Amino acid sequence: MTTLSAAILSQLEGQSIELPSWAFGNSGTRFRVFATAGTPRDPFEKIADAAEVHRYTALAPSVALHIPWDKVNDYAALRRHAEDHGVQLGTVNSNTFQDEDYKFGALTHHDESIRRKAIDHHLECIDIMHETGSRDLKIWLAEGSNYPGQNDMRGRQDRLQDSLQQIYARLGDAQRLVLEYKFFEPSFYHTDVPDWGTSYAQVAALGDKAMVCLDTGHHAPGTNIEFIVMQLLRLGKLGSFDFNSRFYADDDLIVGSADPFQLFRILTEVVRGGGLNNPDVAFMLDQCHNIEDKIPGQIRSVLNVQEMTARALLIDRDALDAAQRANDVLGANGILMDAFYTDVRPALAEWRESRGLPADPMAAFAASGHLQRIADERVGGTQAGWGA
Amino acid sequence: MTTLSAAILSQLEGQSIELPSWAFGNSGTRFRVFATAGTPRDPFEKIADAAEVHRYTALAPSVALHIPWDKVNDYAALRRHAEDHGVQLGTVNSNTFQDEDYKFGALTHHDESIRRKAIDHHLECIDIMHETGSRDLKIWLAEGSNYPGQNDMRGRQDRLQDSLQQIYARLGDAQRLVLEYKFFEPSFYHTDVPDWGTSYAQVAALGDKAMVCLDTGHHAPGTNIEFIVMQLLRLGKLGSFDFNSRFYADDDLIVGSADPFQLFRILTEVVRGGGLNNPDVAFMLDQCHNIEDKIPGQIRSVLNVQEMTARALLIDRDALDAAQRANDVLGANGILMDAFYTDVRPALAEWRESRGLPADPMAAFAASGHLQRIADERVGGTQAGWGA
Amino acid sequence: MTTLSAAILSQLEGQSIELPSWAFGNSGTRFRVFATAGTPRDPFEKIADAAEVHRYTALAPSVALHIPWDKVNDYAALRRHAEDHGVQLGTVNSNTFQDEDYKFGALTHHDESIRRKAIDHHLECIDIMHETGSRDLKIWLAEGSNYPGQNDMRGRQDRLQDSLQQIYARLGDAQRLVLEYKFFEPSFYHTDVPDWGTSYAQVAALGDKAMVCLDTGHHAPGTNIEFIVMQLLRLGKLGSFDFNSRFYADDDLIVGSADPFQLFRILTEVVRGGGLNNPDVAFMLDQCHNIEDKIPGQIRSVLNVQEMTARALLIDRDALDAAQRANDVLGANGILMDAFYTDVRPALAEWRESRGLPADPMAAFAASGHLQRIADERVGGTQAGWGA
Amino acid sequence: MTTLSAAILSQLEGQSIELPSWAFGNSGTRFRVFATAGTPRDPFEKIADAAEVHRYTALAPSVALHIPWDKVNDYAALRRHAEDHGVQLGTVNSNTFQDEDYKFGALTHHDESIRRKAIDHHLECIDIMHETGSRDLKIWLAEGSNYPGQNDMRGRQDRLQDSLQQIYARLGDAQRLVLEYKFFEPSFYHTDVPDWGTSYAQVAALGDKAMVCLDTGHHAPGTNIEFIVMQLLRLGKLGSFDFNSRFYADDDLIVGSADPFQLFRILTEVVRGGGLNNPDVAFMLDQCHNIEDKIPGQIRSVLNVQEMTARALLIDRDALDAAQRANDVLGANGILMDAFYTDVRPALAEWRESRGLPADPMAAFAASGHLQRIADERVGGTQAGWGA
Repeated sequence: MTTLSAAILSQLEGQSIELPSWAFGNSGTRFRVFATAGTPRDPFEKIADAAEVHRYTALAPSVALHIPWDKVNDYAALRRHAEDHGVQLGTVNSNTFQDEDYKFGALTHHDESIRRKAIDHHLECIDIMHETGSRDLKIWLAEGSNYPGQNDMRGRQDRLQDSLQQIYARLGDAQRLVLEYKFFEPSFYHTDVPDWGTSYAQVAALGDKAMVCLDTGHHAPGTNIEFIVMQLLRLGKLGSFDFNSRFYADDDLIVGSADPFQLFRILTEVVRGGGLNNPDVAFMLDQCHNIEDKIPGQIRSVLNVQEMTARALLIDRDALDAAQRANDVLGANGILMDAFYTDVRPALAEWRESRGLPADPMAAFAASGHLQRIADERVGGTQAGWGA
Repeated sequence: MTTLSAAILSQLEGQSIELPSWAFGNSGTRFRVFATAGTPRDPFEKIADAAEVHRYTALAPSVALHIPWDKVNDYAALRRHAEDHGVQLGTVNSNTFQDEDYKFGALTHHDESIRRKAIDHHLECIDIMHETGSRDLKIWLAEGSNYPGQNDMRGRQDRLQDSLQQIYARLGDAQRLVLEYKFFEPSFYHTDVPDWGTSYAQVAALGDKAMVCLDTGHHAPGTNIEFIVMQLLRLGKLGSFDFNSRFYADDDLIVGSADPFQLFRILTEVVRGGGLNNPDVAFMLDQCHNIEDKIPGQIRSVLNVQEMTARALLIDRDALDAAQRANDVLGANGILMDAFYTDVRPALAEWRESRGLPADPMAAFAASGHLQRIADERVGGTQAGWGA
Repeated sequence: MTTLSAAILSQLEGQSIELPSWAFGNSGTRFRVFATAGTPRDPFEKIADAAEVHRYTALAPSVALHIPWDKVNDYAALRRHAEDHGVQLGTVNSNTFQDEDYKFGALTHHDESIRRKAIDHHLECIDIMHETGSRDLKIWLAEGSNYPGQNDMRGRQDRLQDSLQQIYARLGDAQRLVLEYKFFEPSFYHTDVPDWGTSYAQVAALGDKAMVCLDTGHHAPGTNIEFIVMQLLRLGKLGSFDFNSRFYADDDLIVGSADPFQLFRILTEVVRGGGLNNPDVAFMLDQCHNIEDKIPGQIRSVLNVQEMTARALLIDRDALDAAQRANDVLGANGILMDAFYTDVRPALAEWRESRGLPADPMAAFAASGHLQRIADERVGGTQAGWGA
Repeated sequence: MTTLSAAILSQLEGQSIELPSWAFGNSGTRFRVFATAGTPRDPFEKIADAAEVHRYTALAPSVALHIPWDKVNDYAALRRHAEDHGVQLGTVNSNTFQDEDYKFGALTHHDESIRRKAIDHHLECIDIMHETGSRDLKIWLAEGSNYPGQNDMRGRQDRLQDSLQQIYARLGDAQRLVLEYKFFEPSFYHTDVPDWGTSYAQVAALGDKAMVCLDTGHHAPGTNIEFIVMQLLRLGKLGSFDFNSRFYADDDLIVGSADPFQLFRILTEVVRGGGLNNPDVAFMLDQCHNIEDKIPGQIRSVLNVQEMTARALLIDRDALDAAQRANDVLGANGILMDAFYTDVRPALAEWRESRGLPADPMAAFAASGHLQRIADERVGGTQAGWGA
């Protein structure tokens, strides 16, 4: 059995991956949202589910909120609820894609009253962050257009900068803004922040507290994502990851499920660039469990990140460096692949046990009967979803 | 002004493009379905809207139905309603993607009771076709899986063939089955009919009344769609088109709006292969008007097909053939581009007027006040949508 | 250490992967072909290099030839040379993309004299096959066009069928024709055999001795290749694989290097569909080693296929079937991933040693000094390449 | 016939598009470089051919050079030769992809002696620029790697910045450096400047004389290129265009031939962002005429840019702005499409004649017999090509 060194285990011990509250609600495609028994009906139940993931893995100590999906009257109560369940409230995500007013834009809209409303929504999010103790405001801009000519892309870009400046100005000293980019969807012709370059240019114009958020599913086919990770770390602007995986578009599948080797390469660049256990670089999931069970889907996800991080840490950096300097293509590639192909799971299971965690969190959770319990208990009410 | 010959006008006069009833209902993305005032609340109102498109263009004499979205108690009444509005009921589309039972498959499902239910749904569709006078049963298979290993693709393919055979056996003599293929969505890992080759292999095993349906938005990036048009015409298996356009995925935008030159090339191969005004090859739209007005969106769409057909018919075939035989790359390409760049709109406007149609159907419809009228009239009730 | 059962080892023992002679010559991009010391100067030296791969792995008992690159005066002598080195001559590849006459097509050309020449080239290849003892004639059609209108795609398709029929008619009883498809390159607008559907339709019209060749690098971005493997096995028309891997286009990289999980899924469908150690399904490499050493590049490649086959054979089929039938998405996926993440390398190394092979073929070859030896010996002459 | 206003004609009169000297030499794919009779054998003949394009179109007053392909002993003589033919020498392109030393990198190489050599090559290019009177040094970085692990991407990025700083420091006051980005090829795993964001970050760190070069063929499938044009103009960093077109990869086809509507949208953003006839934004072609005649290929290309610019200038900006502000999706799109579908060719032909140019430059050139003349004259010697 491959053993993991104390240095590697120490790094793994420091790892934390934030869970999205919305992963515990129902989600689907434009064709259908299939329901699952036991799905939470409010933010309190979502957090309770998220806490299960942390309980079995010790990997997910915080939960990201989505406003207005997770709006409550008393955020202090929500915070206590989370702490009672052993987790923290994390990043606050704004939403400017579901109000009728935002049909044609929000932070980029030419109508000043709509733009004002969208900015105010973000200021409200910052107010919530003070109550929840959240550090990061994450902005995913669903804005764009479907037809050439529909909008003036240039004017929108300028207005976006102005909107962001107003939001940025409200941030507390210890707070940050992270701006996500996305290749396409829900707009089909143009998206106002479609690539890392745009996000970078926008946040660089704001200041040190503004960073880029990289969602691993938001790129064109064939994009070398680990290159972008490298570049953003180099530029000091990688604020957070939204982990998930995809075969074609923004599939929001379980991280590592579509292309495990890609996840390995991404984490290899994270390690290389000093992004692991670096407070500046938040690890988050952003996934949908359309057809699979949600809590085990999240457990599987954080385990995937942990296992792949372990493999990335196994790379023999000195040997790799020497092979690279010798232009030994096959040798250098072989050193990387050796780490990737190493089965770290037995060592991780053993280590988990040594820390009082279940060796196999998936099996332990399944054995707990929790899914059946919430299916029995959560009867009536309206299951949480995206409210699309 | 470019003039269109009598021969060309005669071809254009024969052209008809079937409208999808669902284009008049609300649609959207998984993030949001924005509502539009005046949206139909039942199949009768949808057909009334579709009839407007035909009234202004004389291009859209039939309307495709979608079961169960367009289920009514009395199909004979719906048929009379359509005829009263000057249109016919056309293709019947089945739906096996919205029932909870179909979460993991329908015509391909390993559970025989679910598969039976899906087959029976198609038999019911055929029954409806007899009442509506429809010729074609269109099957779009939304089935597939999200994760490798989730399903046995091979077993599903065999069961699909068996299901299709049972459905095929029920077809009347003058009825057909067209099987649509789609690259991905709503499934992300595998789709049971992902490409024309699969659709072709499946329908070829059924018989002469089974054909392939080509949706122009259902291909991988970079696919040469007109090549597939050519091939299916050559193989005698092009049963119908679902026209729309896309920038990235299955965007379902207005046909011709994303890549007009591609639509031109497709129609050029249609003409070349004898697919124009060929009863075996049905022209249909399959689009979503998420943010634009729906009736003018459909008017724009059929006009786009008509205009591009006119351009395709303008190609100087003799000169093209000569240039091709001379390996004159630039010359041959130039002959094609000359037709594409020719502005046929004035001649078409004149011809329209000569037939008692408005020269500018978009302007005439806008001037009619119809949109305001239905917005005023259709108050209350539930707007039609996909019911996802 | 994971152990491999006798049943699995028996399957692995039967595995053979044909090497392409051209992998040992220089190759590159349109920008540059970099030379490597020791590169073979004739087919005899290529075969000697290929034999090294077999010597260290027992996986590559045959070598594919490419005509005219591997033309020799005395094929019987070449055959004896191969046998003296412990390998056989395998598939014969035709070449209709480098003669000035073929600038605008070969088997599809409208000029009958050029088409005749291209057909005759294939008849000559069949004659060579009789001398070399080869079973398969592999046809990769580089034909197509760069500009819309340049060619009549439909006429070319018909002429292709006619050409193939003439070639097919010359095949011996034990000989086969495999037709490769490719998404694009070297033509950019259209390719005459761009997808599996076209190859399938063409060979199905020929007869039982004509099959499809699937090159793993010849698909559009996002294509589910294992689905095609499944489908062709189901249709009884998967004749051979050309293994390699790619990030973007037809990169011709070492198989398994770009997306190891994809290779695993492909081999999983091979096993599922009865394609492993099935004489009807030939395993071949088709790769370019532009910058890495060629012989170790091929050793690495066949080992990758072997290791991934071992993982595919490790899948617990009964458990997978049960999970699939229970619609247990995470469970079924987990069973697949368990096999993928298992490190089979130690068990394979041990097994190799038990058969008198080096535990680590890469290290053993490196230690042999062979690369230095051929660099010293092969001085002067012209290094083999594609002669583009 | 559509007429073009004096204001539009004035803008068109100011338009100039630089030709690449290498477009007149032979080019091809990795599979084959087909020869063309009459192909230039040295830079003098290339410039003579380029001058023909300008003679028939008045659109191409300068020619870009490629070092070392266009190395001559006496650049002053080359300059006089150009001026005698009515054209200027333009941008100088460096080449760090064909020397054996650059197999694993040049400006990014870890070996300081190789990196020094590559930097010195650029300093030599700047020296040449002083002799030729060129303003721009264009750097296309072919560097990258084929296999994960082969190289340390981060270290390369840092060394690239250092190399560029050394080159930048040598620029004269009126000189500029433009850095091109490219998605992939000739490297397949990673490219050191793969996207506009990287090019932007690199040149922004240099200073005002460093800009981004946008090659229209160097993006991932589905990329909204006009968005990047808009963004770079907004950021003041769009230094030049390399125009061409593509269906799949970097096909280097005639600009506008694969997707004319995309070219229209790009030029629309150029006009919108003040990039037309702006000395900061150079228009250049970068194309290959693998199978078509080269001089008419270039004539067709500059005409395509001119025609599409005319269409972009025809957009009714006030009406578009009003429709956009009214959220009139179909109206705004319709205004754009109206300009695109307008046939500007007759008006341009008339205008050309009024300026003493041939109405139809393609026909006039064909009638001139020039191709036959150079085919007869240029016998012997070695035809120019890429020397790959």
